[in-house]
Amino acid sequence: MDQRAVQIEAGGVTLSDEQKLAWLRLIRSENVGPATFRSLINHFGTAQAAIEALPELSRRGGATRAIRVASRTDGEREMEAAARIGAHFVGVGEPHYPPWLRHADAPPPLLAVRGEVRCLTAPAVAIVGARNASVAGRKMAALLAKGLGDADLVVVSGLARGIDAAAHQSALSGGTIAVFAGGVDVIYPPEHGALFAEIAERGGCGVSEMRLGWEPRARDFPRRNRIIAGMSLATIVVEAAARSGSLITARLALEQNREVFAVPGSPLDPRAAGSNNLIKQGARLVTEVADVIEAVRPMLGEEPRPVASFAAAAATAPAAEPDDSDRGRILEALGPTPVEVDEIIRFTRLPARSVHVLLLELELAGRIERHPGQRVSLQ
Amino acid sequence: MDQRAVQIEAGGVTLSDEQKLAWLRLIRSENVGPATFRSLINHFGTAQAAIEALPELSRRGGATRAIRVASRTDGEREMEAAARIGAHFVGVGEPHYPPWLRHADAPPPLLAVRGEVRCLTAPAVAIVGARNASVAGRKMAALLAKGLGDADLVVVSGLARGIDAAAHQSALSGGTIAVFAGGVDVIYPPEHGALFAEIAERGGCGVSEMRLGWEPRARDFPRRNRIIAGMSLATIVVEAAARSGSLITARLALEQNREVFAVPGSPLDPRAAGSNNLIKQGARLVTEVADVIEAVRPMLGEEPRPVASFAAAAATAPAAEPDDSDRGRILEALGPTPVEVDEIIRFTRLPARSVHVLLLELELAGRIERHPGQRVSLQ
Repeated sequence: MDQRAVQIEAGGVTLSDEQKLAWLRLIRSENVGPATFRSLINHFGTAQAAIEALPELSRRGGATRAIRVASRTDGEREMEAAARIGAHFVGVGEPHYPPWLRHADAPPPLLAVRGEVRCLTAPAVAIVGARNASVAGRKMAALLAKGLGDADLVVVSGLARGIDAAAHQSALSGGTIAVFAGGVDVIYPPEHGALFAEIAERGGCGVSEMRLGWEPRARDFPRRNRIIAGMSLATIVVEAAARSGSLITARLALEQNREVFAVPGSPLDPRAAGSNNLIKQGARLVTEVADVIEAVRPMLGEEPRPVASFAAAAATAPAAEPDDSDRGRILEALGPTPVEVDEIIRFTRLPARSVHVLLLELELAGRIERHPGQRVSLQ
Repeated sequence: MDQRAVQIEAGGVTLSDEQKLAWLRLIRSENVGPATFRSLINHFGTAQAAIEALPELSRRGGATRAIRVASRTDGEREMEAAARIGAHFVGVGEPHYPPWLRHADAPPPLLAVRGEVRCLTAPAVAIVGARNASVAGRKMAALLAKGLGDADLVVVSGLARGIDAAAHQSALSGGTIAVFAGGVDVIYPPEHGALFAEIAERGGCGVSEMRLGWEPRARDFPRRNRIIAGMSLATIVVEAAARSGSLITARLALEQNREVFAVPGSPLDPRAAGSNNLIKQGARLVTEVADVIEAVRPMLGEEPRPVASFAAAAATAPAAEPDDSDRGRILEALGPTPVEVDEIIRFTRLPARSVHVLLLELELAGRIERHPGQRVSLQ
């Protein structure tokens, strides 16, 4: 693992304004997601060097047209937009970056933060659930949120109607974090402007990995949910129908070795179907906040267990310059079904570092897609 | 294990009227419970021989007054009372005795049965819950009972108000068994006379281990609940407050290696506190009857796993006549805290059979008390 990767893992990085601008440009460039960002930093040492290499890498990967690289002007404009609303960026590895998110799968390299940045490092628990929540569901969310605040745990949620809003509202005094699916300057739903203003005034904050001004689309919500789960020691699902976004949050929490709790409900109430099913599948049944506090207390002192890290895998491989024949072997190994990068390394018998570089090139060329669990497929 | 015990275990016994009368007299005699009954049969071979030995055994155990032995007239009167309402007795090991109850802890030697005796040998599932059940709770009980009947499973319950009544009512067409805490001729609560009549008319039955005419006292209900749990492949708790009799049934089911299911409910509803707690403690959450059917289907073909059998323990020990010094060692080993019979055998280093005989004497003398799990304490 190179020096930069080590620093990111350890949380000892402080980015200069110039570095932060380069990070912002890199993550805003075409085909660069959080996992690719990390691979690029691992490989090139700095964001600036990676940005310069992007066109050549994507060309080698087989891109048919030039990759769109965010310009310096693009980056400066977004920085200015952030400054106008008092938001700023926290980079992964910087002291205020949420510690449990840093060790989650594909942490966002940069979070735009609006409000009190210090609440990001407090131990946090997520409360999520149905937008069309029942009165009882909202009451449970409020009771749990209040109890978590009283125990000095910050409440994370998604600022949605129903359960999310009830949880934020009740957690105002203890501090609460709203994770946005759009830009940190785009309040969604719009009627929660006053609620968010109060969150920010009373020591909480809003965060987003998306560019400022970004209007959230349906597919941005599951992506946002991975941040909610990743920031939190535990995720509580209060009310959720059978196919609810909250269940995605719960699954993402489980995949990241976090506790998942669900509030039970009558099987005759469709709004309880999702949470009851979670319990059937092994989530812990929660009836009172003590259930959660008891489970997360032992986690307060411990280091987050990192999920298998792309950087760590790359670090153990010897350096080598891959050639066209190696690229062919990788493409042969890939198909539409996601497979683990480790499998590809075993199958191709190429050095790990070569595989990572070739995958990086193919990804930047838009020819492969990354999936959770260090898996990739052909696009 | 002597011949009689082997037959009881195998279910191959058919009692003559005269034998049944002797069994009835023995189990109705003072200080003779189901476990003592079995020990006496194991030791003396027949109920008649045990009845004759009772006064001497209890005297040796230190009884200060003569033990009350049920007379032949007492037995005949109860038989006649049963005949008048069309009830009859099924002995443990007889073909119609509930097969899973036979292998439960301390099965009643005789069950009085009123209605269709054949439903006792069908695979059964218990549904129990709150008397002050909510509309949703009663609806869930009815849905589950109907689904079990459709899957050819008999529904066992306690004829109580609320959940029990809803379960019986909905299971009428599939056959349902009401287990009474009083005599099989004492309908409790009295307003369920019409419901019970319909149960008996439509192929179900009522059973009790208590003497005919017995009015149920509070402490008879937990005792009755062990029969509900023992007869059933699984027990479903539908609604139960924090300290509910249904939780006793659930515990007894778990102790007998049976599945326990609980229907979840909102933590804000006190009637769901008990069932939610059961799930926290490992009971399976049930939202639909398929959950239960899936779990019990593999049990349908299998032999019930017997709980550690008092008879089996006695059978492995060599015969020996205990004396007064042995009796002293047993009394020394005992105290007010229940201890396992096996512990006493190890502690006293007496032959197992001697310990069993001495405990039998002490029990008949009213000096010791038996507890579940083959444990005894001083009275």
